[in-house]
Amino acid sequence: MKTQNPAAVVYRPIGVIRSGHIEASRTPIQPEYAAGCPGRAEIFPEFADGLRDLEGFSHVFLLYHFHRAGETRLTVKPFLQDIERGVFATRAPSRPNPIGLSLVTLTGREGNILFLDGLDILDGTPLLDIKPYVSRFDRTVSTRNGWQEEVNQETAEKLGRRMSPLPDE
Amino acid sequence: MKTQNPAAVVYRPIGVIRSGHIEASRTPIQPEYAAGCPGRAEIFPEFADGLRDLEGFSHVFLLYHFHRAGETRLTVKPFLQDIERGVFATRAPSRPNPIGLSLVTLTGREGNILFLDGLDILDGTPLLDIKPYVSRFDRTVSTRNGWQEEVNQETAEKLGRRMSPLPDE
Repeated sequence: MKTQNPAAVVYRPIGVIRSGHIEASRTPIQPEYAAGCPGRAEIFPEFADGLRDLEGFSHVFLLYHFHRAGETRLTVKPFLQDIERGVFATRAPSRPNPIGLSLVTLTGREGNILFLDGLDILDGTPLLDIKPYVSRFDRTVSTRNGWQEEVNQETAEKLGRRMSPLPDE
Repeated sequence: MKTQNPAAVVYRPIGVIRSGHIEASRTPIQPEYAAGCPGRAEIFPEFADGLRDLEGFSHVFLLYHFHRAGETRLTVKPFLQDIERGVFATRAPSRPNPIGLSLVTLTGREGNILFLDGLDILDGTPLLDIKPYVSRFDRTVSTRNGWQEEVNQETAEKLGRRMSPLPDE
């Protein structure tokens, strides 16, 4: 069967991320490097019923639109390494479909507001979806971590925070 | 600041998933229950340069459009339990933005074709993005798993496969 490029898909944000990150260059690159960076997801009231029971989970995946991603580049130098890589082998924002994925801590819910920690997301980012993190599905043991294995832990932690202060600073 | 509903976002598929799953009702609900379900991601040639270095990773996140999701429901009975839950507290397809997220095994790459295992995705599904799974970012220890903790492991494994045969059957 010949593959035809399927039609475009259209999504409408379900809410907005509120965080202390207002400059991309000072925003941690992953939740792993965003300890002590709290924030909120403000879900639009028409979707509030969909949040029922979410507060039972300690961690959630946020899927969001990188609204300040800039133009698509198929190869990029990742934040952690000065070597050009295929964009799909990185988490860089300049992807053909600029969808962000962050696994963050859910600290509470009040109605349509989610209280979050470990936020690596710019303030004002449009939120597309929320999924619960379920240990029995999601805590995978990977055997190979590609070019990431060339970056030592100290370098990753230093570069990963991107000048965001440590919690005790 | 008053929150305004931000504009819709438009994405174009970067490829198509090929799997042995042609009926939704017989498709495993998660990669965890899809051992022995191989398949491919056929990336459109114009995006092939973005795949460079991806083969170094043993696991990848696939983000895709649930093209047969049906209408949005804000509360659903999840596959694993007969109790109505908020859709964002489940991984059900009938979400406001029907984006699927699966963490699958990458067994190889030939040009623009990715060879995959552990596929819980219907054949013909439009692929939106690929991200490498990086142990140092993604292997989170969650402390609370919500309603999922009410489902025992045996039930989850039985229901999770959804009649997909075991590898040795």
